[in-house]
Amino acid sequence: MWLELGIALVGAAGAFVAWKLRQIRKRDIKLAAKAAYLAQVTKPAVERPPNIVLVLCDDLGFADVGCFGAIAIKTPNVDELARQGMKLTSCYASAPICSPSRAGLLTGRYGIRGHVAGVFFPSGIISLAMSPFFYSMGMKGLAPDEVTIAEVLRKAGYRTGMVGKWHLGDRHPHLPSDFGFDLFYGAHYSNDMKPYRIYRNDEVEVPAPADQDTLTQHLTREAVAFIDSSVQSGSPFFLYYAQPFPHTPLHASDAFRGKSRAGLYGDAVEELDWSVGEVVAALKRHGIFENTLFIFTSDNGPWHEGNPGYQRGRKYLPFEGGSRIPMIACWPARIPPGTASSAQCSHLDLFPTILSQLGIPLPADRVIDGRDISGLLADPSSQPIEHPFHYLIVRRMQAIRRGKWKYHTRHASDNGAYFMLHPGPFLFDLETDPQESYNQIKNHPDVADELAGELARFNASLKRNQRGWLLRE
Amino acid sequence: MWLELGIALVGAAGAFVAWKLRQIRKRDIKLAAKAAYLAQVTKPAVERPPNIVLVLCDDLGFADVGCFGAIAIKTPNVDELARQGMKLTSCYASAPICSPSRAGLLTGRYGIRGHVAGVFFPSGIISLAMSPFFYSMGMKGLAPDEVTIAEVLRKAGYRTGMVGKWHLGDRHPHLPSDFGFDLFYGAHYSNDMKPYRIYRNDEVEVPAPADQDTLTQHLTREAVAFIDSSVQSGSPFFLYYAQPFPHTPLHASDAFRGKSRAGLYGDAVEELDWSVGEVVAALKRHGIFENTLFIFTSDNGPWHEGNPGYQRGRKYLPFEGGSRIPMIACWPARIPPGTASSAQCSHLDLFPTILSQLGIPLPADRVIDGRDISGLLADPSSQPIEHPFHYLIVRRMQAIRRGKWKYHTRHASDNGAYFMLHPGPFLFDLETDPQESYNQIKNHPDVADELAGELARFNASLKRNQRGWLLRE
Repeated sequence: MWLELGIALVGAAGAFVAWKLRQIRKRDIKLAAKAAYLAQVTKPAVERPPNIVLVLCDDLGFADVGCFGAIAIKTPNVDELARQGMKLTSCYASAPICSPSRAGLLTGRYGIRGHVAGVFFPSGIISLAMSPFFYSMGMKGLAPDEVTIAEVLRKAGYRTGMVGKWHLGDRHPHLPSDFGFDLFYGAHYSNDMKPYRIYRNDEVEVPAPADQDTLTQHLTREAVAFIDSSVQSGSPFFLYYAQPFPHTPLHASDAFRGKSRAGLYGDAVEELDWSVGEVVAALKRHGIFENTLFIFTSDNGPWHEGNPGYQRGRKYLPFEGGSRIPMIACWPARIPPGTASSAQCSHLDLFPTILSQLGIPLPADRVIDGRDISGLLADPSSQPIEHPFHYLIVRRMQAIRRGKWKYHTRHASDNGAYFMLHPGPFLFDLETDPQESYNQIKNHPDVADELAGELARFNASLKRNQRGWLLRE
Repeated sequence: MWLELGIALVGAAGAFVAWKLRQIRKRDIKLAAKAAYLAQVTKPAVERPPNIVLVLCDDLGFADVGCFGAIAIKTPNVDELARQGMKLTSCYASAPICSPSRAGLLTGRYGIRGHVAGVFFPSGIISLAMSPFFYSMGMKGLAPDEVTIAEVLRKAGYRTGMVGKWHLGDRHPHLPSDFGFDLFYGAHYSNDMKPYRIYRNDEVEVPAPADQDTLTQHLTREAVAFIDSSVQSGSPFFLYYAQPFPHTPLHASDAFRGKSRAGLYGDAVEELDWSVGEVVAALKRHGIFENTLFIFTSDNGPWHEGNPGYQRGRKYLPFEGGSRIPMIACWPARIPPGTASSAQCSHLDLFPTILSQLGIPLPADRVIDGRDISGLLADPSSQPIEHPFHYLIVRRMQAIRRGKWKYHTRHASDNGAYFMLHPGPFLFDLETDPQESYNQIKNHPDVADELAGELARFNASLKRNQRGWLLRE
C-alpha cells in the first residue's frame, strides 16, 4: 500500500512540475512578445507630442461635479476644464469596481483579460475572507505581460509619473515601476484598507496609518513637482494622478473641511477640484496647457454617498450608475473647447486613442477592447463606429449596450430584497428610459435576441480565451 | 420524578390558560371600545357630504405618470385629475412595502400598530419560508380592534365598496367585510401570490389562477357598477379601488398590450390610466365629480421596474424612492384646481383629514399618527404644522424626516455589496440633496442629535406601547 501511495505521490508531483514548467514557458513567451512590441516603439513621428495628464477620481459619481449637474458641490476648476474641452456624457469605466476599472483604463482591455476580475486586498485573514465577495480569489496583480499606456509612452520618450492609488498589486512584478512608471508616489490600496502606507517608488515614505487629512495636499505637491521636473528635463510627460477620494473614509484638509454644502464628501470633492486647479495652474505656468491632453474622470459610480445623477444603480451594479462616470477631455490644441458629446465611449478607448494620436501601432498579439476615438475628440458631431460596451460583473459580462439599447442577462437587485432577484433578461431603451425602469423585451424581441447573441458570443470567447491572445502559442 | 413533571405541566398549562384569558379579555375590552366609538359616529353635519374615491396603485413609482415626470408612459386621465386638483410632491406611503402601507392608509396609524409589520403570504410551506424575510412572522391580519376609514364612513351613512387587492389578511376577522366594506370584489393577496383567486365578498367568483390580462377591465367594471348602484341608492359612497398593477407579474388586455413606449410595465400603467378615466367618466355622467374627493396614489416605490424619479432607492428601502409616491387630491368643490404643494404629508393623514371634513371626531383611545391636512388641501401655500415622518423598516423606524432634514440610523445598502453596509448614522438635506447623496452629519451635529433623539423616543414608545393605546386598560 505504501508503495502504491509513493508512486501516486511521485506521479502527482511530476505532473505538477510539468504543468508549472509549461506555465512558465507560456509566460516567458508572452513576456518576450511584450518586450518585442515595446522594443519597436520609437519616439512619435508627430511634431510636438502632447503631454498627457490623466486624473482618475475614486468612486466619484456622475453628478458630483458642477458641469455634470452637482448643485451642492462647487467645482470651478473641473467646470473650467469642461469649458476648455469636451464633456463626454456617455463614457463608461471599464468595470463598476476599482481594480478591474483601473486595469482597463491603463491597458485598453477589460481587466479580466489581465487577471483582474475583482478588488485586491492586503494579505491577511480579513482579506482572505473578503476576497470571494470581491471576486478576487487567487488574484495577485495585473498580469506582467499586459501592456500599459505608461510602458508605451516611456518607450516613446515620455517621462512617466504616477501619483495616488495604484490598486493593481502590491509586490513585484505588479507594481507601478513594473508597468512603466518612472515615479510612483502613493498607496498600493484603497484608503479604507489597512495598513495604509504612502510609498515613494518602492520605499515607504509615510508609514501606516498615513494621515489622510493632508493626503490631497501631498499628492498635489507631488503631481506639480513631477510636472515641474518633467518640463526641466525637456521631455513630454505622462502624469497618472489617481486621486484616492471621494472613496471612504472621507477626509479633507483644514482649509476645506466643513466648507462645502455637501458634508465631508463635498469637502473632499471640493479639495480634489482645488487640486485639479493646481495641476492646471502648473501647466499654464509652464505654457504647456494648450498642448496637454487633460483627462478628468472616475473609476466607477458612487458607493454609499455620492450622486449617480439621473441613473439607476451605484458602484458594483450593472446599471448605468455603476459605470457611467463623468469624463472631460481637454486639449486646446486639438479638441474643440466647450463641446459635448453623448456618443458611447469608454475608458478602454484611451489606450488606442493615445497611441493613435502619437502614430504608435497597437500590440498585434492581443485583443484591444477599446477603439480609437480620435475622430470624436476632433469633432463632437461625428458618430464613432457603433461598438458595444460590456458590463463586467463577477468574471463575466452581465449586460451589453449598443446604441440606445441595453440588454441585461439577469438582474442585480438594488433594493432591500436581496433574496428576490427579478429574473431577467431585460432590455432597456436608454434614450426614452435613461433610468432603466421599463423592460422592453416583449416589444422588441429581435433587438433582445441580437444583443443576447452578441453577449453570449463575447462571454464564450472570454471562456475560451480569457486573455484575448490573437496568435497561436 | 413523574409527579414533579406532572405538576410542572399542569402549572404551565394553567399559566398559558391564564395568559390566553387575559389576552381575550384585553381584546374584548378593545373591541368594545371600538364598538363604542363607532356607535357614536352619526351622519355628518356637513350639508353635502362628498363621495370619496381612493385609487391606490401597487408599486407605481414616483415618475411613472406624466404629471410626475414620466416620458415613455402616457397617462392623460391621471394628468387631467392633477389639472383639476392638487399635486402633492412630498407625500409618503406609510411604509415602503405593501401590507403595512395599506394598513396605514386605512387607519391613519403606522401598520405596525395594528400588527402589520410585514407582507402577508398565503399559508403554505413557501410562505412560511418567506415570512421571516418579509417581516411577517406570526402575522395573521390587521388587528380587529383597528378602526378603518370604511368603518367610520359606513357608520356615517356611506355606502362602502372595495375593488382590487386587500392584502391585510385572508380570513375572518381580517377581511374587508370585517373592516366596514359593504362590497368587496378582488383578491386577498398580491398578484404574484398563489393561489390567485378573485372573490366577490366571501365567495370565490373566479377560481385560481384568475386571468390577469383582463383583470383591470373587470375591476373597472366593478368600480363603475359600484358607483352606479351607490348613486341609485342615494347615499354618499366611499370607493377604495386598490389596483393590483404595476406589481409583477405584469399584464394588460389586448387593447393595451404592446401600445406604450415603456414595455409591458407601461402598457399596464396606461390601462390603469384608462381605468381612472372610466371611473372619472362615471362620476361626471352622474354629475357628482365636483363633490367627490378623488385620491390617486401608490402603496410604495417601484420594485424591479418602474421609475422613482430623481430619488434614491426603491421599494423596501428607507430612501425616498421607497416611500415617496405620486399623490393627487382632486375635489373641485373644495381643493383649488391645478395646484401643487411640496409640503410634507403622508397617507396617514387621510384618515384624520377625511374625518375632519365630515366633522367626525377621531377615536380617543389610540394614537393617530397622521394629522388633519384640510388646511393644506384648501390652500397649497399654507404650511401644515411641522410633523415628522417615520420610515418603517423591520418592525422599527429606521429614519425620520422633519422639514428638509432626514436622519437615517443606519444604511440599507442599495448596491450589489450587500455584505458591506455603510455604518450610519446619516443626515441628508433633502432641499439641496434630493437624492440622499451627501451625509451632513459632521456639519450639523445639533440637527442630527435632535432627530436621533426624536427617532429614539418614537422607537422606545413603540416598544413600550406598540399599539399606541392612550387609555389605561
